[in-house]
Formats: sequence, structure tokens, C-alpha cells
Amino acid sequence: MKILITSGGTSEAIDSVRSITNQATGSLGKIIAEKCLAAQLDVTLVTTKTAVKPQYQEGLTIVEITDVANLLATLEELVPLHDVMIHSMAVSDYSPVYMTDLAQVKTVQNIESLLDETNTEGKISSTAEYQVLFLKKTPKVISYVKQWNPAIQLIGFKLLVNVTKEELFQVARESLVKNQADYILANDLADISPEKHGAYLLDKESAVPAQTKEEIAEIILEKVLEKRR
Amino acid sequence: MKILITSGGTSEAIDSVRSITNQATGSLGKIIAEKCLAAQLDVTLVTTKTAVKPQYQEGLTIVEITDVANLLATLEELVPLHDVMIHSMAVSDYSPVYMTDLAQVKTVQNIESLLDETNTEGKISSTAEYQVLFLKKTPKVISYVKQWNPAIQLIGFKLLVNVTKEELFQVARESLVKNQADYILANDLADISPEKHGAYLLDKESAVPAQTKEEIAEIILEKVLEKRR
Repeated sequence: MKILITSGGTSEAIDSVRSITNQATGSLGKIIAEKCLAAQLDVTLVTTKTAVKPQYQEGLTIVEITDVANLLATLEELVPLHDVMIHSMAVSDYSPVYMTDLAQVKTVQNIESLLDETNTEGKISSTAEYQVLFLKKTPKVISYVKQWNPAIQLIGFKLLVNVTKEELFQVARESLVKNQADYILANDLADISPEKHGAYLLDKESAVPAQTKEEIAEIILEKVLEKRR
Repeated sequence: MKILITSGGTSEAIDSVRSITNQATGSLGKIIAEKCLAAQLDVTLVTTKTAVKPQYQEGLTIVEITDVANLLATLEELVPLHDVMIHSMAVSDYSPVYMTDLAQVKTVQNIESLLDETNTEGKISSTAEYQVLFLKKTPKVISYVKQWNPAIQLIGFKLLVNVTKEELFQVARESLVKNQADYILANDLADISPEKHGAYLLDKESAVPAQTKEEIAEIILEKVLEKRR
């Protein structure tokens, strides 16, 4: 059985030196990959250069990506070749379109016209006191997975910040339905610290709780192994 | 002799999950620190969690920082305690003020009023097709160093992208004068690859070239040791 795991976080370039990224370190994806490898499953880990990774070992293939466009192209090839996808990567939801100084924004008649502009300079000038960065929503990577491979078992992730358990479950289950995921690992940043990682593995009816990254990896692996039976 | 080295790159939070950062990995600062340690100098390395670092060893103190405000407060304490500062860190030049959807920006009478807004939500909503992020210039960390310690030997760094050697030298020497630096290591992103790192160590009159990170560390160490004599 071939398992596709994504981990770490994408970065979206503003120019050739600056980028927008997120706090994801890849540590949860690393632990999940290690558990799958220990269970003799083949793992393809799609991650980033800076993410923490398991040691190179038999059964493990690592593919490095950078931004959402790169991730999308990579997964389109890989998803049809796998039986399970565990999508723990924090994917950027916005990508820079154009950055300019506030003075230019104030002079244009129609702000939307700036969405057609692009920065051609390698490093955007840093003299203005205020800059304005226009961002466009990225494609939702998880929404393509079942189109590319309807038979794949898909485990998605939903991270919210400081919400009630009810809201977390509701948003996660909306994602479950919309993306035809088999499970969503729902977690709240407020429940994550170096020592613990509170989360729930949800399907439409059930919710399996976990308290640490180790436990999260175990409850996910259980569902993966159930599917094999 | 006590050497203060900064390396890696700062990150500026947009909200509790997203941030703006840069490509700096800390690898040049790591090599400079290792060369200084090998020359029996005491090194304080101010860097970030994700940056590559020398192994823990005698004579080395590592201090981790996150954003520009954090860096500034840390350096204000450390600069007076050191004889040399090698400032290789890529410091964010803009910090997020407020992010909102394009629709809100279009409805306000005066765009500048948005500069007084702040995001109170933990994770800024990601439903709008376009978002607009307002950014404010950060304080120039290097400009405070000689105020905090007029006797310190200051080696600054200037990274440009795809410029002529003349422009690189001119911008670097402007920084030299403005920040009362003793030297500026001037480099162009176009001259940096995994195998090479072209750069010049400039003062007002001279320019010492280097082709690799090792060579950069060597020519900097030479200036540091000259100062001791």
C-alpha cells in the first residue's frame, strides 16, 4: 500500500527575496511518515526544504516543493499513484499579486486595476513608509484530490485558531463533505504546544480524540490499516 | 575579543499562522561563526529557530529571535557587550499592519484610515478572492548599532538583486556611511548558488572580492583580527 503524505508549509514569493509563509515545521508529518514506515508501508513525503524530515530509509521517497502552484503540479502526478493521502501540509491560501507603495494606491482611480500589475524588479524597493500588497486566493489543493483519484483514501487537516469545539467540528465537517475527504484531522492552534497537540480525527459521525503528535499519528495509521483490510 | 554575529532571517507575523519572511537560511552566518570560533574568539550568535547553526561548543552562545522588534530589543542589550558585530541577518524591511478583503478597501473614503486598523482575529478569514495587506517600514536595526556602542567594529551586509557592480558598490557605500559601518559585505542574489557566493567586502576606498561563503568568512575574519592587533 502506497501512502502519500504532505507536510511542512508552502511559501509564496513576493519577490526574489521576500515571501509569505506559515509556522508549519513539518514535525507532525514527519511522525506520521515514521509510523507508516514502521508499519512497512511505502511512503512518499511531499514537503519543503526547511521542513523537518524522517531519516532516509527504505520505503521512503521525499519530494520537495516550494509554492502552491508547484505543489499542485506535483500532486496531480502523485495522487493517482497512491492508495492513501494524508494532507498535513499547511498550504498558503493567498498568493501575492502586486506590491506597491501606498502613494500609488492613493492615486489610482480604480484600485482593482492594480490587480493587473506585476512587479518586474527582482527586489521590490523599500523606501516608502507604507507598502500595499495585493493577494489572490490560491486554488484549494485538497479539492482536486478525489478528482485525480476517486479511489484514494483522503485524510485532510483543518487548523483553526481559538474557536469552540463546536465551531471546529462544524468547519472540519464542512471541509470533509466539500472535499470528499474520508477523515479530517481537526485542531486548534490554542491546543498546540511543544508538549501537546490536541486534535480530533473526524468523519461524518465519529470523532476520535488525540493529545499528542504521536497519538495523532497512531489514530491516523489505524484508519489507514483498516482500509487495507 | 567578543564577536556578535546575526544570521538567518526575521519573520513578521501577519496573524497567528501566517508571516512574511525571506530566503535567508543562516548558512553564511554559521560559517562565519565557525571560523571565529576556530580562531579562539568568543561568539554570540543571534539567529532564528529555523536557521542552520554551528554545533554547540565552548565559546559559543546562541540567542534565538523572531521578528524585528524582538531583534532590536535583543541587540540593544548585546551590542554594548561586544567588540565586533557581523550583521549578516536578513532583516525584514516591512511589517504587517492590517489585512482585509479588497471589498472593504474599496468602500473606505480614505485608504489611510485603514492604517489605524488592526486584526484582532487569530487567523484572518480566507474567504475573499482578494485580500489587501498594508505594511509599514521597520526600524533600520543597523542604524542603531554605533549609537549603542560607538567603539564596536561594525560589518554590515547589503544584498541586492540583478544590479551592476557599480550600483551594488554605490548602494553598499551609502549604507557604510549612513550607518557608520566599518565594512559592508556587498552581494547580489544573482551571484549566489549552492556552489558559489560572489561578494565584495567594501570600505570607503577598497573592495576585497570573495567567491564562496568560506572566502567571505575568511576575509571578514581577517578584518576582525586586524582590529585586535
